[in-house]
Amino acid sequence: MYRQQLLDCHNRIKPYIHRTPVLTSRLLNEIAGAKLFFKCENFQRMGAFKMRGATNAILLLSEKERANGVVTHSSGNFAQALSLAAQSLNVKAYIVMPSNAPEVKKVAVSQYGGNIVLCEPTIEAREAKACKIAKETGATFIHPSNDMNVIIGQGTAALELLEDYSGLDYMFAPIGGGGLIAGTALAAHYFGDNCKVVGGEPYEADDAYRSFHSGKIESNSTTNTIADGLKTVLGDKTFPIIKKYVHDIIRVTEDEIVIAMRLIWERLKIIVEPSSAVALAALIREKDSYHDQQIGIIISGGNVDLNQLPF
Amino acid sequence: MYRQQLLDCHNRIKPYIHRTPVLTSRLLNEIAGAKLFFKCENFQRMGAFKMRGATNAILLLSEKERANGVVTHSSGNFAQALSLAAQSLNVKAYIVMPSNAPEVKKVAVSQYGGNIVLCEPTIEAREAKACKIAKETGATFIHPSNDMNVIIGQGTAALELLEDYSGLDYMFAPIGGGGLIAGTALAAHYFGDNCKVVGGEPYEADDAYRSFHSGKIESNSTTNTIADGLKTVLGDKTFPIIKKYVHDIIRVTEDEIVIAMRLIWERLKIIVEPSSAVALAALIREKDSYHDQQIGIIISGGNVDLNQLPF
Repeated sequence: MYRQQLLDCHNRIKPYIHRTPVLTSRLLNEIAGAKLFFKCENFQRMGAFKMRGATNAILLLSEKERANGVVTHSSGNFAQALSLAAQSLNVKAYIVMPSNAPEVKKVAVSQYGGNIVLCEPTIEAREAKACKIAKETGATFIHPSNDMNVIIGQGTAALELLEDYSGLDYMFAPIGGGGLIAGTALAAHYFGDNCKVVGGEPYEADDAYRSFHSGKIESNSTTNTIADGLKTVLGDKTFPIIKKYVHDIIRVTEDEIVIAMRLIWERLKIIVEPSSAVALAALIREKDSYHDQQIGIIISGGNVDLNQLPF
Repeated sequence: MYRQQLLDCHNRIKPYIHRTPVLTSRLLNEIAGAKLFFKCENFQRMGAFKMRGATNAILLLSEKERANGVVTHSSGNFAQALSLAAQSLNVKAYIVMPSNAPEVKKVAVSQYGGNIVLCEPTIEAREAKACKIAKETGATFIHPSNDMNVIIGQGTAALELLEDYSGLDYMFAPIGGGGLIAGTALAAHYFGDNCKVVGGEPYEADDAYRSFHSGKIESNSTTNTIADGLKTVLGDKTFPIIKKYVHDIIRVTEDEIVIAMRLIWERLKIIVEPSSAVALAALIREKDSYHDQQIGIIISGGNVDLNQLPF
């Protein structure tokens, strides 16, 4: 079922997304002791893989639903992705953002045509506000990660990577809400040749690691990580897929994230956000277990504030 | 003659260089009011187009010359390019660098197998030292820009760009020693369809602009520019080609360079060095003259010290 859904989704969203390039680097191969293939979703439209899931979710709405618009709560890449996907499809997008969201993020959402609705900076407030908008306008709520249409959409990045490099032994991806890793795991399961999926997560927001080992969805009491896209937690759609299809989850320190990010900037000459570097950091941390393997690394996005670099 | 030399050179160096990708951006097109095609030599081996000319120059040496090695004076990308090209071809490379060159540049040259010879930080001292090494070892001196084999090599980036996008109306490139712009102008002349070449240069090192207008090679009394690859001056090989084949040279301020660099980082999500941004800065400065044109921009390199960013 998911196999066909992934293929259908890929055809559906193709006109609205970029087929992103895959980069390699001899020096990074040497450092990791493996053959690495970086799937560059930082070159995706609006700068992140989230464009895939957002586009798929809107395209699967009925005519009537589209006429009423879509709503989500996010201060990160999904806010921009849903705004741009909606704009491309002539659909209205309501984006609930915390009142303390950085100005630069509000500007980005506005540029992509999203309608920002501010709320108190708590999870409860933003969920309540999104719910209220859905009721009042008839807009369809689309969750940034815990939504099967979004998960399938995110999986198309891995699908493309496996089309380009069918012999991958592993794919590494960062874990935030789990949409990317769940989609990647489904793609690996249905289209890989015994390709295993490994998640990277900051120690400072290691809810997925703890959930993976406890067998139930865990939360974070604090999230003091530079990987600001990975502060969210798993949901009832993403977690079962992760439990069933993900091979392992590796946690990394903040220093390891910055070192990996810098390696990618200096060696691949591309801009990636800290969350993106978590996958490479995870591999480097446990590289002895992956010696000489062929490894796909999903570079999730490149939206970074150049005024707040860690180096 | 140059037409065939460019084609032969391209075939000769192909096994040793990357065919670099061409990136586009709707938003940068909007800002420039034109259709832009960025030829990404920041993704070239060792991070800059200089790999092309260095490889060509070594490949054209006789067996006996190769056995004696090569020598150049450079503290920039050509030092790394000649080191790596020589290493790839099992040739010894002597790199004369000023004693005050940044440690990070010395490390880079060493990593690529170059043999560093330090000298006093004056042009006279480095030329004398390179000459001395050539005499003592029999190594062939290869100039970073003022050498026809180097110029032809650098022109292959534009050749590839025109293979990919034959309808370009203009190509923009930065001007330092003039090797890149001269090679680009030759490629445009022989392979473009009335494609004109425009150079970008910092006001703070505008020797090529002044040479272009005075008709003789001018020098810089100071070079206080962030575009550290563009501080060098034209030579007797590069200048005649520039005079004959380059359409115009546009000067830009330091602020304009940083703004253009930031645009490329934020919108294309790629790391480029300040010198690379000068071409886009020049176009943006005079964009009214290039409205709706199809414009190739040579992104010359991506070697930047992340500890010394201008933002």
